[in-house]
Amino acid sequence: MDIGFIGLGHMGQAMARALLKAGFRLTVYNRTRARAEELQAEGAAVADNPAEASRGDLVITMLADDPAAEAVVFGEQGVIRALRRGAIHAGMSTITVALSKRLADAHRAAGQHYVAAPVFGRPDAAAAGKLFIVAAGEPEPIARCQPVFDGMGQRTFVVGAVQTAANLIKLCGNFLIASMIESLGEATTLIRKSGGDPQRFVEVMTNSLFPAPVYKTYGDLIVEQKFQPAGFSMPLGLKDIRSLLAAAETHAVPMPVGSLVRDHFISAIARGGANLDWSGLARVAAQDAGL
Amino acid sequence: MDIGFIGLGHMGQAMARALLKAGFRLTVYNRTRARAEELQAEGAAVADNPAEASRGDLVITMLADDPAAEAVVFGEQGVIRALRRGAIHAGMSTITVALSKRLADAHRAAGQHYVAAPVFGRPDAAAAGKLFIVAAGEPEPIARCQPVFDGMGQRTFVVGAVQTAANLIKLCGNFLIASMIESLGEATTLIRKSGGDPQRFVEVMTNSLFPAPVYKTYGDLIVEQKFQPAGFSMPLGLKDIRSLLAAAETHAVPMPVGSLVRDHFISAIARGGANLDWSGLARVAAQDAGL
Amino acid sequence: MDIGFIGLGHMGQAMARALLKAGFRLTVYNRTRARAEELQAEGAAVADNPAEASRGDLVITMLADDPAAEAVVFGEQGVIRALRRGAIHAGMSTITVALSKRLADAHRAAGQHYVAAPVFGRPDAAAAGKLFIVAAGEPEPIARCQPVFDGMGQRTFVVGAVQTAANLIKLCGNFLIASMIESLGEATTLIRKSGGDPQRFVEVMTNSLFPAPVYKTYGDLIVEQKFQPAGFSMPLGLKDIRSLLAAAETHAVPMPVGSLVRDHFISAIARGGANLDWSGLARVAAQDAGL
Amino acid sequence: MDIGFIGLGHMGQAMARALLKAGFRLTVYNRTRARAEELQAEGAAVADNPAEASRGDLVITMLADDPAAEAVVFGEQGVIRALRRGAIHAGMSTITVALSKRLADAHRAAGQHYVAAPVFGRPDAAAAGKLFIVAAGEPEPIARCQPVFDGMGQRTFVVGAVQTAANLIKLCGNFLIASMIESLGEATTLIRKSGGDPQRFVEVMTNSLFPAPVYKTYGDLIVEQKFQPAGFSMPLGLKDIRSLLAAAETHAVPMPVGSLVRDHFISAIARGGANLDWSGLARVAAQDAGL
Repeated sequence: MDIGFIGLGHMGQAMARALLKAGFRLTVYNRTRARAEELQAEGAAVADNPAEASRGDLVITMLADDPAAEAVVFGEQGVIRALRRGAIHAGMSTITVALSKRLADAHRAAGQHYVAAPVFGRPDAAAAGKLFIVAAGEPEPIARCQPVFDGMGQRTFVVGAVQTAANLIKLCGNFLIASMIESLGEATTLIRKSGGDPQRFVEVMTNSLFPAPVYKTYGDLIVEQKFQPAGFSMPLGLKDIRSLLAAAETHAVPMPVGSLVRDHFISAIARGGANLDWSGLARVAAQDAGL
Repeated sequence: MDIGFIGLGHMGQAMARALLKAGFRLTVYNRTRARAEELQAEGAAVADNPAEASRGDLVITMLADDPAAEAVVFGEQGVIRALRRGAIHAGMSTITVALSKRLADAHRAAGQHYVAAPVFGRPDAAAAGKLFIVAAGEPEPIARCQPVFDGMGQRTFVVGAVQTAANLIKLCGNFLIASMIESLGEATTLIRKSGGDPQRFVEVMTNSLFPAPVYKTYGDLIVEQKFQPAGFSMPLGLKDIRSLLAAAETHAVPMPVGSLVRDHFISAIARGGANLDWSGLARVAAQDAGL
Repeated sequence: MDIGFIGLGHMGQAMARALLKAGFRLTVYNRTRARAEELQAEGAAVADNPAEASRGDLVITMLADDPAAEAVVFGEQGVIRALRRGAIHAGMSTITVALSKRLADAHRAAGQHYVAAPVFGRPDAAAAGKLFIVAAGEPEPIARCQPVFDGMGQRTFVVGAVQTAANLIKLCGNFLIASMIESLGEATTLIRKSGGDPQRFVEVMTNSLFPAPVYKTYGDLIVEQKFQPAGFSMPLGLKDIRSLLAAAETHAVPMPVGSLVRDHFISAIARGGANLDWSGLARVAAQDAGL
Repeated sequence: MDIGFIGLGHMGQAMARALLKAGFRLTVYNRTRARAEELQAEGAAVADNPAEASRGDLVITMLADDPAAEAVVFGEQGVIRALRRGAIHAGMSTITVALSKRLADAHRAAGQHYVAAPVFGRPDAAAAGKLFIVAAGEPEPIARCQPVFDGMGQRTFVVGAVQTAANLIKLCGNFLIASMIESLGEATTLIRKSGGDPQRFVEVMTNSLFPAPVYKTYGDLIVEQKFQPAGFSMPLGLKDIRSLLAAAETHAVPMPVGSLVRDHFISAIARGGANLDWSGLARVAAQDAGL
């Protein structure tokens, strides 16, 4: 199976590397070519443009946001013109529901398959092939993708034939994480200002009610106030909440916690936190309490 | 060890029963005597008033709220006058930080020991002896309580000598649960209105990012909209958030998610949901979206 | 002076009528031609397309939203191609800051003048020539517009040469109204549920602290729960808050009351209130309190 | 008519002075006696305790909060024991609905009259006899108070026989002011960060939609960022919102803008603003946007 891989940021490069390690043949493309060339030693071929990476059976995209994904797919040397009929585009980026819909329509019109397959996990999970993948699309192309997904993820959840369902679940999952961070930020700030030990608080919580790795990971970052380097940056967090709220508005669903978290992302960025990890939401909570 | 147990509501009765089953000798008291008598067959002695249940080495209180706890401790036939010097009062109710402080002071002045030991877990966990207990107070009396705690809980977290620290952690823990319920309510509402399957969403979340029982338990209640019978009722949820916000105001800590959840508890009650489980916060989210 | 007037909705028709009554010569255009023809009896010439209404010295646009304004200006038979060099486009619609910027750039590039001149006031104020106009742009074209503005408004506030400043003030003004409605809704709900008289409350407020007509107007609508017919509808209110929050995000400004009002607009629409006046925000407050 | 006046803070002293100037005979009491003695030159007799100031036909109280009012009325040398049957207590402080109810009951039981008569206006309005007074209670004692009220206020609104109605309107009025401050703070922050002129914005607003003195007063304070000296301090603002939210909870009314404003008062205090005027809420908005 000839696979193209487009988008080699923190996540994309780790995912591509996991695939190479698992023995897949990859043609990689990245706007900044240097990041693509870093993978040559591991066996990847380097493409000059998205089209060149879209000549095989499957092309995977892992890009930062909607504009990047649109440029790569619909641009001059884009995916959609290069991909042959019957081939698959697996979109693993976290994009809006609206763009996913547009991609589904465009690929269908071109006789191609579009599988939406966003992922949960930070770069270290990607490197270890331990991502969670949420996939939606026609069953047959998903089945063809499965071995490739298995090279990057520990588990794939297929959530139906409508591609946007996967994107919405991804956005909702990130919303749950962001709201957990916000709540942990508020609670640990209170513990701290009351003279208590926030670390002990997180220990109690993660060893009783909330024994989920995500609570442990973010709880520790918050307690240690270790918001750099950014595994997932504030502007990306804001982008995802913005995408979520746009989808929610389409369906006439108010999400007050979503709105609150959005305001705090904006505030974090306004206060100089654009380079922080999104767990830095907890810093906003602390600052608002005078810490 | 002679143990008194005061307060036999859903939680208290299950906890007392677990202690009896574990072989402890119990004198129980409840305002509505019938609930105390239900435990006679299992070996409990029934007291006529709180004082009678406070003649031993340890008295445990498990009451609904501050006024109930105050009445039992400071009232006519109350705990504080009956307890002998050196004996222990283990307060396991979810009360305010302010009352816990007052109890600590009063017991100290009377030459008695006060251990704050609130619990996490619903009545079924109490019956199974699977609670999580958060204890604070002097080490020696906590050590004396430990075997008793082991009869009710799967684990005890000792969080220091200042009793209020335990109560604050309890309130913060309930806040984390309430905010999780709120966020799950908002997210599942969006999934539902978008035509997706909220059950599948909860499955994906609890098998990937959030493999904590509390997410599974509440996720299922929310998806099935099974808000009755109330394991933990709306007014109790509101009371705990009110107590949290009062403590936070004392320390000049704004908790915007706390405020939002408080408003939704009030709204749930205003819309006729006073008898619902607090997971019914998700019904507010659904109604606000026109469902 | 030959004036074109494009967009004859509730507001636009009332404004055009005021101009005709004041003696101005008008060529009018509306997508639904019938509304244009209603003005023929009062002396207006009817154009077949936007271009035909843009042949004079000044063309005024008063459209519902960004897409409508974009279509009229940049479309096939649009304003920008038809307007001669040195002529003026006075954009009086409530549009986004981003579109206003784009219009300013496009008109400048075409050697034309763009004056942003959004208005405050409901249709009855427009009919009476009593609007408030907030104008921004180069001084000379604004001076040329002034007599025309005087035909529609009781006062024009010139707020500088940067057109977007006027649009932002318009959005902020609507935000102040929306937040006032929200607060009045919450307060009157409390008065009502406490057994008090919300009408008396509004009387006290508008005869003491808040003797502004806008408090009187909306206070009365809220007390009488007279949310129809819609002078300014929910979806338009939501659109303006959305535009405001987009501008605020651009400048990294969190606006928590704005976010809250946005959620309530969405909720109002979700609960079947899309046809209500935006004062119907108060109905959301009442419903949330179980009324 | 012999009048007692208890509580000579910023507001109380200005009110007492207005009464003296209007020719009323006053016996004044203040915990810090020096502030009472300042009025001797203007003809006031100085009392040694609240009881001494309660021997006439009418005693007015103007105190900072519930505890102060409770101490003065129910304390050792308190109002309630000293006031003769048929005499009147006019409570003009901003107190909770719950305390007003308790006062009404206690005075009724003692054969005395209680008139709740809180006021709107800052100290300068009090000195000029230009307050707005909201009065509730039995008609006859209110009629007796009217000439006295006329010495302090420009207008009295009688809102019924149930005393708490006046207190609730007072709290709701302060809520409307606080939410106006919050909204003005958010809007002016946006104008400022966008490069616009917040002063011009306030001018436009107060000369068009919002020609109410309260908008002008607070708009100017906010634009000039002149938050000191405090005409009405942050802790007092927080107290009033807390009282409002307590009353609202009693009636099961969620007030989300109230909750938001409460959080911002707390945050302002946490960030060192306890000595600021409550218009300093706008500083929180500015800081949250990185200014």
